[in-house]
Amino acid sequence: MKLLEEKIRQDGRVIGTEVLKVDNFLNHQIDPKLMQAMGNEFAQLFKGQQIDKVLTVESSGIAPAVFTALALDVPMVFARKKKSLTLSDENYTADVFSFTKQETNHIIVDKRFLTAGERILLIDDFLANGQAVEGMLEIARAASVDVVGVGIVIEKTFQKGRAILDEKGIHVESLARIAAFEDGQVIFAD
Amino acid sequence: MKLLEEKIRQDGRVIGTEVLKVDNFLNHQIDPKLMQAMGNEFAQLFKGQQIDKVLTVESSGIAPAVFTALALDVPMVFARKKKSLTLSDENYTADVFSFTKQETNHIIVDKRFLTAGERILLIDDFLANGQAVEGMLEIARAASVDVVGVGIVIEKTFQKGRAILDEKGIHVESLARIAAFEDGQVIFAD
Repeated sequence: MKLLEEKIRQDGRVIGTEVLKVDNFLNHQIDPKLMQAMGNEFAQLFKGQQIDKVLTVESSGIAPAVFTALALDVPMVFARKKKSLTLSDENYTADVFSFTKQETNHIIVDKRFLTAGERILLIDDFLANGQAVEGMLEIARAASVDVVGVGIVIEKTFQKGRAILDEKGIHVESLARIAAFEDGQVIFAD
Repeated sequence: MKLLEEKIRQDGRVIGTEVLKVDNFLNHQIDPKLMQAMGNEFAQLFKGQQIDKVLTVESSGIAPAVFTALALDVPMVFARKKKSLTLSDENYTADVFSFTKQETNHIIVDKRFLTAGERILLIDDFLANGQAVEGMLEIARAASVDVVGVGIVIEKTFQKGRAILDEKGIHVESLARIAAFEDGQVIFAD
């Protein structure tokens, strides 16, 4: 997605060889027009998939996911992140390890909001090691919903997340694919 | 806002005499069309105020705030919530006590995203005891930005938040005002 690549080039801050900070338009300060354009793009990319619901994880997934859900005319559900977990029959839960923070969080979805047989699109802001998406897949399995695909805002192709999802045969669409960071610059894939 | 009141009557769950659960359309599962309508309504209510930026708190504020920002054609910033705080010169912070959870969280905004003199609209999902809004006001003061008003999705008029903001002379607009819960039913104000 050209608009997003331009925004990353212009406003993204590369830190070292692995980290891209996009907190000025995606995950702290938010550019609403860009979020709307991304939502429309995801809806277009997964058109004809008869999607019933969009699932994401708080907080950075919410803005892209809500515009995707609007364009698809379906509800959106965001999984809650918690450091500690009160076990309950009312929720689906999964563990998500963050490599950046070196800590495990739990993600939680109320069972009322996923119904067996529903067709679900997963949305997330970053695909790096794939932990957040794997957590959502675990919840989807527990809820017996069908995952029609995964929409990612920014994929880092040099980390293992994409390979994990490809191996599972999951349809992944990323709006920007980053192959490397060189001398503080973003090198896009393709 | 009629549409929101109908949604609350239809899908809200009253628990006891103080709690309204709206996790099926506002703060866990989200109705994107309703969020868009609310964003347009807030933009209309604060029209002509020359707003530079919308500020909210993660996570439930994000969806209404991003649609408000879209309608106003300005950026949105969401404050991060943290249980513990690493002191840093890079951030504005405030303490927010949650009466529901009986715990104090910190809210954090990167200094790069609030510039002295900017005109800011605050958005939040609930106004009850006013703690979250007071936290945002504290950050606004520290950043020397002007708060043009506060947009609230659901106000509980029987708790003290509204009185606190009225005393400060702040322009508050709530899309739904709840006067009481009686026998599991929502009684709207006015």
